[in-house]
Amino acid sequence: MRSQPQPKTADLDLAAVLHALGDPVRLELVRLMAAGGEVPCSPPHMDVPRSTLSNHWRILREAGLTSTRAEGKARFMSLRRDDLEERFPGVLTSILASTTPPPVDDRNGA
Amino acid sequence: MRSQPQPKTADLDLAAVLHALGDPVRLELVRLMAAGGEVPCSPPHMDVPRSTLSNHWRILREAGLTSTRAEGKARFMSLRRDDLEERFPGVLTSILASTTPPPVDDRNGA
Repeated sequence: MRSQPQPKTADLDLAAVLHALGDPVRLELVRLMAAGGEVPCSPPHMDVPRSTLSNHWRILREAGLTSTRAEGKARFMSLRRDDLEERFPGVLTSILASTTPPPVDDRNGA
Repeated sequence: MRSQPQPKTADLDLAAVLHALGDPVRLELVRLMAAGGEVPCSPPHMDVPRSTLSNHWRILREAGLTSTRAEGKARFMSLRRDDLEERFPGVLTSILASTTPPPVDDRNGA
């Protein structure tokens, strides 16, 4: 498989991290990872084309927000919470606390 | 003078705020305002074209990060810290704590 390059913790750049978080879809992906640990490329209740999601995941990974685990052809992403907390204390935590989860409906039944 | 529209506190959007902060120049403008209160359109030690700065200021204002005060033809921008703290507790504070001030040199003598 191709490697999934991600920046080292010391190389994390605050502006790049904030840029990656500065999009509603990417913010939702980050919220999902924070709530559920690993998240697949196409989370079941997100109505966003797979190719668009793929681009969002790339931006998140290149900014240093995610780690990628491969399982066969599938990819599972998780938040680099410890790395981000070490480099930018409180930033991700306060952002996550300010994100509002979507209203509960039957989409989670998928 | 033209009005300088800015969103109400209740209308501040987290993704828009993070997008506005997700640029090195805008992050530096925010850091300057946090350190010095009001900042003019073209801060003396920033080597960025005035038209580029003007665009950055617009993005910051439209995302709800700044208030603008007019004095004759001059404009002075300040951070809407209280509004942002009310809407997204800890977010701006932790981001500012993670920004590194530029090395001390003779640029501040200008």
